[in-house]
Amino acid sequence: MKKIGVILSGCGVYDGTEIHEAVLTLLSLDKAQAEAVCFAPDIAQRHVVNHQTGEVSENETRNVLVESARIARGSIRNLRDIDTMILDGLIIPGGYGAAKNLSDYAVAGAKCEVLPEVADAVTRFRKSGKPIGFLCIAPVIAAKLFGSEGIEVTIGSDQQTAADITAMGAKHVAAPVEEIVVSPGAKIVTTPAYMLGPGISDIAKGIDKLVAKVLELA
Amino acid sequence: MKKIGVILSGCGVYDGTEIHEAVLTLLSLDKAQAEAVCFAPDIAQRHVVNHQTGEVSENETRNVLVESARIARGSIRNLRDIDTMILDGLIIPGGYGAAKNLSDYAVAGAKCEVLPEVADAVTRFRKSGKPIGFLCIAPVIAAKLFGSEGIEVTIGSDQQTAADITAMGAKHVAAPVEEIVVSPGAKIVTTPAYMLGPGISDIAKGIDKLVAKVLELA
Repeated sequence: MKKIGVILSGCGVYDGTEIHEAVLTLLSLDKAQAEAVCFAPDIAQRHVVNHQTGEVSENETRNVLVESARIARGSIRNLRDIDTMILDGLIIPGGYGAAKNLSDYAVAGAKCEVLPEVADAVTRFRKSGKPIGFLCIAPVIAAKLFGSEGIEVTIGSDQQTAADITAMGAKHVAAPVEEIVVSPGAKIVTTPAYMLGPGISDIAKGIDKLVAKVLELA
Repeated sequence: MKKIGVILSGCGVYDGTEIHEAVLTLLSLDKAQAEAVCFAPDIAQRHVVNHQTGEVSENETRNVLVESARIARGSIRNLRDIDTMILDGLIIPGGYGAAKNLSDYAVAGAKCEVLPEVADAVTRFRKSGKPIGFLCIAPVIAAKLFGSEGIEVTIGSDQQTAADITAMGAKHVAAPVEEIVVSPGAKIVTTPAYMLGPGISDIAKGIDKLVAKVLELA
């Protein structure tokens, strides 16, 4: 049975992992009889967003690992302890958590930094020749880390994000929500998910393909 | 397009809605081209559970409506404002939130009370002849409200919960995770989901069937 690491970044589209994207990733992996092993960094969230109003909840703090455990039903590990050797691939769902907690793309744009333990894990998977899937906004992490290699990734149709991807050296490929892009010569697989949407059954198609491709390359 | 109300009870299996069950319900509805309209009560959660450790977070409070908005991506309404007339059916996913926030079953057992606005909404759907689906532990709400009519529901294989269902006048039917039970003569549909599990692809089968049946009866 193949084991795929899934890096979560909180629990909720506006300040953490996009919940639907994460759950659909876990569903696709389980359907394919692969084992999902969830990880998250043990750090404070950049902030907490009230998902009913869309506003930042001042004076509230939450931990990325603790909140991510909600999606993983408690079965989650500290990203610091990820063992690349026993895993066959890696997937990072989207949501603002990828751009606020796993990186600071949401505030720094093309000049963003990737959280060191995320950069370390992703780079080790890449050096080991193992596939990595990025959903939604998460491809900015790939662009930042491997842009110098000219990798190709999806990001939906947002002009500013596409420009940032280019500024980081990567190439943005406009793919529809039900499709994936495999960067030529690299085991980097991306799909737009909720960068395009619109509905959960739309993003499910692209996520199913991404998971199948990651497993095929693993 | 049929519109189905989905009542959420927070965001996380131990103190709110079971996230996978809720997301799979939304996925099934969208695949069937039905519209999901999410609701939650605007009340404080019974408590907040750290999903990494399983322990109650003392001194932390969260609001059921605000947390449920995470699963609904912000598109959620106050349960107080639910309009039975414009909806064709209702589904209540599981998670401890159904037994801690929508009712007090987790602490009171067979002597539980159902939150008045939940009881009111569910009763109105039932009186209007519209179907109601209950997942996982949520059938205890149906047992409490309609037990006197001898309705039949699933609850998995937990002996105590089955005994409580019986004590409330309802009948427990032992169904496997991929199956549903439609109470004879009633439009009440139930499936065990994570009361049995074990995996997300297992519960998905029962949830797909429950959603299909609710839409068929709507």
